[in-house]
Formats: sequence, C-alpha cells, structure tokens
Amino acid sequence: HHHHGRSAGIIGAPFSRGQPRGGVERGPDLIRAAGLLNRLHEQGCAVKDYGNVAFEDVVQDEPVGLVKRVRAVGSANQRLSEAVQAVKRDGHTSVMLGGDHSLAIGSIHGHSAAVGDLSVVWVDAHADINTPLSSYTGNIHGQPMSYLLHELHTKIPVLPNFSWLKPCVWAKDLVYVGLRDVDPAEHYILKLLGVKVFSMSEVDQLGVSRVMEETCDYLSARGKKPIHLSYDIDAIDPSVTPVTGTPVAGGLTYREGVYIAEHLSQTGLLSAVDLVEVNPLRGQTEEDVRSTVSTAVELLLACFGRLRGGNHPLDYRLPEP
Amino acid sequence: HHHHGRSAGIIGAPFSRGQPRGGVERGPDLIRAAGLLNRLHEQGCAVKDYGNVAFEDVVQDEPVGLVKRVRAVGSANQRLSEAVQAVKRDGHTSVMLGGDHSLAIGSIHGHSAAVGDLSVVWVDAHADINTPLSSYTGNIHGQPMSYLLHELHTKIPVLPNFSWLKPCVWAKDLVYVGLRDVDPAEHYILKLLGVKVFSMSEVDQLGVSRVMEETCDYLSARGKKPIHLSYDIDAIDPSVTPVTGTPVAGGLTYREGVYIAEHLSQTGLLSAVDLVEVNPLRGQTEEDVRSTVSTAVELLLACFGRLRGGNHPLDYRLPEP
Amino acid sequence: HHHHGRSAGIIGAPFSRGQPRGGVERGPDLIRAAGLLNRLHEQGCAVKDYGNVAFEDVVQDEPVGLVKRVRAVGSANQRLSEAVQAVKRDGHTSVMLGGDHSLAIGSIHGHSAAVGDLSVVWVDAHADINTPLSSYTGNIHGQPMSYLLHELHTKIPVLPNFSWLKPCVWAKDLVYVGLRDVDPAEHYILKLLGVKVFSMSEVDQLGVSRVMEETCDYLSARGKKPIHLSYDIDAIDPSVTPVTGTPVAGGLTYREGVYIAEHLSQTGLLSAVDLVEVNPLRGQTEEDVRSTVSTAVELLLACFGRLRGGNHPLDYRLPEP
Ligand SMILES: [Mn+2]
Ligand SMILES: [Mn+2]
Ligand SMILES: [Mn+2]
Ligand SMILES: [Mn+2]
Ligand SMILES: [Mn+2]
Ligand SMILES: [Mn+2]
Repeated sequence: HHHHGRSAGIIGAPFSRGQPRGGVERGPDLIRAAGLLNRLHEQGCAVKDYGNVAFEDVVQDEPVGLVKRVRAVGSANQRLSEAVQAVKRDGHTSVMLGGDHSLAIGSIHGHSAAVGDLSVVWVDAHADINTPLSSYTGNIHGQPMSYLLHELHTKIPVLPNFSWLKPCVWAKDLVYVGLRDVDPAEHYILKLLGVKVFSMSEVDQLGVSRVMEETCDYLSARGKKPIHLSYDIDAIDPSVTPVTGTPVAGGLTYREGVYIAEHLSQTGLLSAVDLVEVNPLRGQTEEDVRSTVSTAVELLLACFGRLRGGNHPLDYRLPEP
Repeated sequence: HHHHGRSAGIIGAPFSRGQPRGGVERGPDLIRAAGLLNRLHEQGCAVKDYGNVAFEDVVQDEPVGLVKRVRAVGSANQRLSEAVQAVKRDGHTSVMLGGDHSLAIGSIHGHSAAVGDLSVVWVDAHADINTPLSSYTGNIHGQPMSYLLHELHTKIPVLPNFSWLKPCVWAKDLVYVGLRDVDPAEHYILKLLGVKVFSMSEVDQLGVSRVMEETCDYLSARGKKPIHLSYDIDAIDPSVTPVTGTPVAGGLTYREGVYIAEHLSQTGLLSAVDLVEVNPLRGQTEEDVRSTVSTAVELLLACFGRLRGGNHPLDYRLPEP
Repeated sequence: HHHHGRSAGIIGAPFSRGQPRGGVERGPDLIRAAGLLNRLHEQGCAVKDYGNVAFEDVVQDEPVGLVKRVRAVGSANQRLSEAVQAVKRDGHTSVMLGGDHSLAIGSIHGHSAAVGDLSVVWVDAHADINTPLSSYTGNIHGQPMSYLLHELHTKIPVLPNFSWLKPCVWAKDLVYVGLRDVDPAEHYILKLLGVKVFSMSEVDQLGVSRVMEETCDYLSARGKKPIHLSYDIDAIDPSVTPVTGTPVAGGLTYREGVYIAEHLSQTGLLSAVDLVEVNPLRGQTEEDVRSTVSTAVELLLACFGRLRGGNHPLDYRLPEP
C-alpha cells in the first residue's frame, strides 16, 4: 500500500498568455510552496524538480484572425514539449504545473513524442476543443485539444510559431470528465468525432465511481496506452477551488476530484499529469487561495498513490511494549 | 440537441400573502433581471413574456380559523389560473415565477383546466399538504396540495374567495422529491393517500438518477399525462439558495436540482413549471441573492432543454481554414 | 412511523484531556442548549438526563513515554464507564455527549460491561487506533480503539489509572466509516487485524447507502449484537461542522451523516451513541458553532428514529371540517 518505485518529475510552467487574466503564471510556485514536493516524498515517492520552464519573451504578437497571442503560445508550448520529453526520458511521471490550459498542447505533444500513442483523460468544466476559427473569444486555453487531434488537422489554419506541432492524439483515445460549459461549436465537434464525454449530467447519472470505471474500460478496450491526465482545477466546484479564471457552478466535489486521481493512479498507467488554471489573483480571500492550492496538492498526491484509507511502508513494524 | 419547437410563456406572480415574510413578491422581476428570457432565446427557445399578474388588493382579510389571508390568496390564485389557461391556450409551456408556493393552487388549476389531467412533480423541502384545519401556522403556502387533491376534498372547509376552485389532481398522479421537513399531519396524509415520496432519505439511498427514473416510470405507468413541475427553491440546499423564507438544511445539491429539471425536460411531457419562494430580503449578502437567483435561472434553462454536455443548432457547420 | 418505546439516557462528559485544545469540554452543555432533550421528547422519545459526569481533578500527570495526561484520561474513563453502565441498567439507549474521543474508552467499556459483546460502528475522519507506542502526538483521543481491542492487548503497555480496563471488542465486530486521515501505523494495524473499513474512497465508490447496507450485513453475519455508534463530529465535512479540533477536508456531507444515523436507528439494535469532538473554541464565527452543534443534534435525532420523510404518532387523526 505504499507506492514503491513511483517517481515524479516536476515542471513549472508559469505561463498565462492562453487567456487574458494575469495571475495564473503564479500557479507553479504556489503549488510548490504548499508543500507538494515534501508531501510526495513523505508518501514514498521519488521527486525531481526540473524548475520552471524559461519561456521566450514574445513582444510582437498581434492577433491572427480572432486568435490572441498565437506566437507566445506557440513558442511556450514548444519549450514545454521539450521539457516534458526530458522528464519522460529520465523515467519519471511528468507533472506539469500551469499556467493556463493552452499548455496542454506542449505537455501532451512532448509526452507523446517521448512514449508514443497516449490515452488522454481531460478533467475540466470546459472541453477546450474550439478550433482557432470556431472560437469566439480567441483565447487559446479554450482550444488546445483541437490542435492535438489528428481528426481536426484540416480544420486548423497555419499559425505562426506552431510549425513544430503535429497532431498526436486520436479522438477515440480521449475521454472528458466534468464538462458543464460547452460551446455549440465544441458540442458539434464532440458529436462529429464521437468523443467519449462524461459531462456533469453523466456524473450525476452514473456517479463518479462508474464514470471512472467506464473511462478506464473504454480506454483499455482501445489498447492500453500510457495515460495523460490533464486536470483543469475549474473541473472542481468553485465553492472548493474558487481561485481560477473561468469558474462554473455545479462542479465536481473535492471528493470526486480526488477519487478520479486515486482511480487513475491505481491503473498503473498514469504517465503524465497537468494541473492548470490555478490563479491566485482571482480569489476574494486568502482562504480561497489556500483552499484551491491545497486541493491541487491533494489531487496530485492521489495521482501518486495516496489513498484516503491510508498507506504504510512495506517494512513497517508495530512497536512492542 | 437543440430544442426545436419549444416555447416558453412567462407569467410573473408577485404575491407573498401565502406566508408572512415580505420580499418574495420580488421574485419574478429578479429572475427576469438575471437574464432568463435572453438565455432561453439563446438556447433556441421561443419566449413570450405575459408580464406580471395584476392581483386584487384585498383589504379586509381576517383569519378564517387559524388560516391567514384566505381572501387574498383565493383571489390571487383565481387570476393566476386564468393567466395560466391563456398561456396554455397559446401553446406555450407555462412558466410561473413566484411569489410564494400558495400560487401552485392557481397554477395547477389553470394548467389542468386547459389540458386536463396532469402529473404533478413537487420538488420541495416541504410537502405543503396541510389542510386548513391541520396547519398550525395558518400559512397557505404550506397547504396548496390539500386544496388540489380530489381525495382531500371532504377535509377542506368552505373558504371565502375559493368557490371557483375544484380539486383537479389525483394522489396517484403526484410525486414528491426532496422532502425533509414534514409535519406529523402531512406525514399522516401522505401515508393515508399512498402518495409517492422521495424524501432526502430516498435521494440519499437511491441517488437522484434512480429517483428521477422511478418518478417517470411511476407516473407513466399511471398514464402519460402533461407534467406540471412545481419547484420550490427551498428544495435546493440553503448553502446554494439561501434566499428563501423557510430554508432547511440537507437539501438537494445544485447538480441534483439541475438534473431533475434536465430529466423532466427530456421526457417531452413538461407542460408547466412553477419556480417559487425566491425571497431576496432573506439573504445576508448580495452573493446570497445572486447565487439563489442564478440557480433559479439555471433550473429553468434545464427545463427547456439545456444540457450540461452541450447543445448545438441542427444547422451548425464548422468553419474551414 | 413514530418511535414507540424508545428512550434516551443522556450523559454529559465535559472532558478534553485526550487532546491539547481547550473548549471541547463545552460540548455537552452546548448540545443540550440547542434543544436536544426537547426535540427528542417532541418526536415521541422518552428522555432522562443523567447530568454531567464529575471527573476527578488529576494534578500530577506527567507524560508516560510520549503519551500525555494518561492518569486523567484513565480516571475519567473509569467514571464514564460506570455512568454508562447505570444508564444501560436503567434500560435506556445511552447517549454520551463529549468531550474528546478518548471518552470512547469508558463509553464502550461501560456499554459492554452492561450488555456483553458489542458491534462497534466508528464514524470518524480518523481511525483513532494508534497504540500508546505508535502514536507520535501522544494524544489519547487518537488511540482509544487500540485500548479496547482484544487483538491489540499485547501491544499496549501498562499505564497508570488504566488497570480497571480490560479489552472488550473484537476486531471482527468493528466497522469504520468516513476515514480519510490514517497514520501509517494505523493502516498497518487495520490491515493486520482485517478490520472492515469504509474510508471516504469507499464511500465515493459505493455510495453511503451501500456502505450502510454492507456495514449492517457484515456485522449481523458475525452475530447480531447491540450496536455502539461512536460518532466523531469530524467525520462530517468541515464546511458543515467546522467547530472541531482536527478537521479534515473531504468529509461526509450533512445528508450522508444523517443517513448513517437513520440507517442504524432502523436496525433496532442501536444501544449506545457517542457524539464527540464538538469544540466551540475552534470556530471562526457564531454561525460555525451553530451549524456544528445543530448538525450534532440532527444526527442524534436520527439515531432515535427521526425520518426526513416524516413521522406521525400512531393515534394521529386528521381534523374534519
Ligand atoms: Mn481547461
Ligand atoms: Mn476549464
Ligand atoms: Mn413549497
Ligand atoms: Mn418549501
Ligand atoms: Mn476524528
Ligand atoms: Mn475520533
């Protein structure tokens, strides 16, 4: 019941240009400051911190059509992809601390470049699958899955600083959990591609336990592959994790959020995790920040084998009087 | 997945005399101000606002036994019944925005007068089925179902301004969801008449998904009839919808509340909805009001086909590069 | 549906030395002041208040190894055991209002001394099963189950003021519900003894309804015995019951907490209840205290037959016009 042989490679990605609100670049350092590394170590997990990715300072970055800050996002994700590849080459489970969710482009690309085809579990209030042309906000954090899917390749225009990116995920290998704010275009795409979606309606209908069972059955029926978990903190209800850019009522409970991570951890296939969209400047109070960050930490601990029923080292012996 | 051919006829019912607390008469305008009509329109639903019912100003209204403001409640419900009949004659799904829950008398009566026998789904912390003689508060918002049921006709005394009202609902066509504060007399009546009740104990035991499945199976086994959904906002937990006259701990979650509306909407039988007991003067903070009113709006959007997994118009086409 | 023949014998145990934080000794009087006795009486339950146990004032109480206030805890539990035995001899269901959870030692011992072998249902965020030697805080409120279990007898050193105590519970007769903060030593013990545990992971997986069904099936398969329910208020989520010494995120909802009590009450086997760890000095606001105490009262009412779907006296008759 301890987690022997697990190791985490931590990458900070202090990047916010996939969306308009400052603050989300503080996520990595906040999550570290809340004790992530110590807590992982205490539960028997090897940890290496790869530090924060040094992103290029893109100055000239005019919108391309409606899409904002394309060059900065393209460049940042290229660097992140390389960082994730290095972590995977070193044999760790990659932990990418965002930053906004546009970073999933580089994180998933790098993961796939290192290990091949992936299963992707995307836990989010949003589908983040608008194309650059269907998006009406132009924020790339609402678009990353469209860049990554083979099936949408012909729908994506050429964009500056994105020539390095080739699609690397098949729609059949993607499962969404937690959706509750999906644009019409996104809904159209999800139906067109037949993507497996457990929106909050399905979470309510089936319960989180059957959702995760069906998620894992569905993915393993399509070939057991390393799992990339892309966890947007806004999947969790804003009463628990208010400190995020686009909160939506009716989210996952803290317990459901932890259950998802626990369950994926038990598959033994979890190979990379993104934890994104923690934005301390969006809170009303210090307690809002504390609650959000500490939830992020608990989600990550559960990804690395922490069980609420307890764990103990293999060699534990009870003291005798 | 869009909602073709749906149309909503909105009736405001700014009435509070079924209970002692001022403020609940502000419900209709608050719910409109939160954008209900626009949101319905955006999701492809036709909308007609019938405005607020003009209630008679009853001056002399001494208690009849313990029962308070009988004449005002009788008169208001007669007018509301006529308004609902007009909305149904025009072919809309009726949406009655209360006001207090005594208004269900006129809303259900009018609905039934227009379309015949109904199924009634009553979502509430309370059963609101005291008779005028069993009630010990004398507030009619705790009594409406007793006036409406054929089986209780002999238990209801003659009351001023109620001669227009004939019972129109059979006990077998009534299902309660969300009960958690039921008077002994009410419990006696529910057992006597064999009314189908999913109290919070049953919601906990079965889960909201089985509760709604069993609700719809039960009702359709007794003959598929147009559904009248009478939704008391106090069914939802006071942590979400605190702004109401008689909050009770341990209520439905926001998600369960929305699920109930989504599920009934999918039956295609939803023919009238009451949304009652939003009382902005009962809140501690503006956030309390905002949260309660916005929940009310989301419940109504779900009644008209909004799904958390998304919707798109039939003719949607994805833009190409 | 009323609760005929039930009777409650209330014991206050204003004791806090099983842990370091003052305030928890105010629990009994707070819970009484919130109307417990009246509310029990109103729902048809006979009530006798045995008052507060007069604990010995232990002055010299140096730690024994790491274990703190051993003599005070030993002495207090001896007196409490006698008080519980008196309540059981009088034929009541015993209700012990703590005070901290070290008091389970005397409460369970006294219960068992009066009625013989017990089933124990321990509802708590914590397992409270450290031995005096495995505990690293030395607070006895984290240790009571280790003193009570036959199987751990050889692991417990001789402690001053504990010579009166003999183990009285078998591991097979113990079920935990709600665990989410379990020390490695405790996890080791739970696995070693094969104790039945429904941690929050299992509550999430199975739902509270199956957890309680399996709890009762498990216990009755091992011989129907009187049930001792030891309810730590910290089992409930801190958003509901913040006023407690060691809150842990991700707890039982109010509804799950009540469901557990309702379900055990319906077995007809509930013979003693502890309600512990309400500490008013741990709250931020008066509302925190009110919410915690009122939840404690609702849990106890459910233990004595209150159902959320309602109750009525056997002889109720509906008034006729
Ligand atoms: Mn996202
Ligand atoms: Mn999101
Ligand atoms: Mn009502
Ligand atoms: Mn109500
Ligand atoms: Mn505890
Ligand atoms: Mn405890």
